Amino acid sequence: MKNKYQFAQEIIREAGHFIKSKMDHYIHVEEKTQFDDLVTNLDKETQELLISKIKNCYPEDNVFAEEDDIRHPINQGNVWVLDPIDGTVNFIVQGDHFAIMIAYFEAGVGKFGLIYDVMRNLLYCGGGEFPVCVNGRPLPEYEEKPFNRSLLGTNACMYADNYHGIRDLAKQTLGVRVYGGAGISMAQVMAGQLLGYFSHIQPWDYAAAYIMGKKLGYTLLTLDGHPVDFNSRQTIMFIPQAKLTEIKKYIK
Amino acid sequence: MKNKYQFAQEIIREAGHFIKSKMDHYIHVEEKTQFDDLVTNLDKETQELLISKIKNCYPEDNVFAEEDDIRHPINQGNVWVLDPIDGTVNFIVQGDHFAIMIAYFEAGVGKFGLIYDVMRNLLYCGGGEFPVCVNGRPLPEYEEKPFNRSLLGTNACMYADNYHGIRDLAKQTLGVRVYGGAGISMAQVMAGQLLGYFSHIQPWDYAAAYIMGKKLGYTLLTLDGHPVDFNSRQTIMFIPQAKLTEIKKYIK
Repeated sequence: MKNKYQFAQEIIREAGHFIKSKMDHYIHVEEKTQFDDLVTNLDKETQELLISKIKNCYPEDNVFAEEDDIRHPINQGNVWVLDPIDGTVNFIVQGDHFAIMIAYFEAGVGKFGLIYDVMRNLLYCGGGEFPVCVNGRPLPEYEEKPFNRSLLGTNACMYADNYHGIRDLAKQTLGVRVYGGAGISMAQVMAGQLLGYFSHIQPWDYAAAYIMGKKLGYTLLTLDGHPVDFNSRQTIMFIPQAKLTEIKKYIK
Repeated sequence: MKNKYQFAQEIIREAGHFIKSKMDHYIHVEEKTQFDDLVTNLDKETQELLISKIKNCYPEDNVFAEEDDIRHPINQGNVWVLDPIDGTVNFIVQGDHFAIMIAYFEAGVGKFGLIYDVMRNLLYCGGGEFPVCVNGRPLPEYEEKPFNRSLLGTNACMYADNYHGIRDLAKQTLGVRVYGGAGISMAQVMAGQLLGYFSHIQPWDYAAAYIMGKKLGYTLLTLDGHPVDFNSRQTIMFIPQAKLTEIKKYIK
């Protein structure tokens, strides 16, 4: 497993170099389902790069990835979950604030996860048998903090609509932050910079944080308190396990 | 003026070093007007450091600063406008995403502004007779971009309440970002990463961006379209001058 974990760190950094080397040249943007659901040639090319490296080294392994509907079920065999560019809108508009994510499962059990904030060159990785680190420095487990010394990461519309009580919860805290990327937001939860993250996201958006967060005392649940399904887009919260009861007073 | 501009760059970087050297030790947090209006010993000490350096070099100059009610009128003589830590909540909770800001006026005319994103070590400065640069690299003037390829920076509550139509405007764009600091948000406007910034802020929060933005084609107005008063807390927008008419269709 250690070799595989090492390999994952190598390919995610390589994918980061690939994106950085290409992003100042022409980026071709396409709309997927609507005007704000975008994909670029670099999302696709980066995913292809990651898959070709994985298939080259581990030809028996399977892939569940954002682009091109590659959907091997998470609980069958060895599965790599890939999000080549998380925060594609930030990538297109800002050239910043996006991440590459990889999660690795064997028979449905998360073995390790990686979130790479490309422009800040911060690699968050670990989970399973590995400590969770950022650029090699171990992150501490969740430490108790009251709501009134905390910030929440959220999806902007869910906050504005007080969806499931998110705004009610936010009012107990110092406020919300909206970064526009699940990867960089969930990394900030694990770094203690956000109390939790609330959004409407897909398995490739949460798989890495799910594995890493478990090791640090965080849990990933749907807003009505169920385990995520690793299959469809769901409204989720990524929060400290120790805060679940307190958070449930507001999130109904 | 060139010497003074050079001097401002030196003291803002020095203040950044000062904060970085102290922030991992004890930070004492006090509430100002309510539980989420916070100040720390480092806000105050950093302001004192800046003022003592200014008064040492330019004893005749005046100061308008966030802490301790130092409020020399902007339009009388030489005035340094100081925000020692902009984004104090981010500073306290995240240890990141805050800025130091300096603006310099002579008889009410902005001569230069500086926004220093301390943890990313990015110094945005210029305006007046100086080109606006980030770490010495000139920023281009505003380049036309349609709403549907843009992001807005906003105050979270103003967005959620559709205050003056902010949410209506946001719906024309790819979405909002909430960073919790005027300095880092307005720097992102000038870097082309956000189309505009909408918030409820004080003169020390906007003075630097006002001077720098003017040079790059941005304007700072109240939400009802008037010039800011450099005196009180106001709801403002910092937007491309060229987009004003289009934005006014939504911001009433």
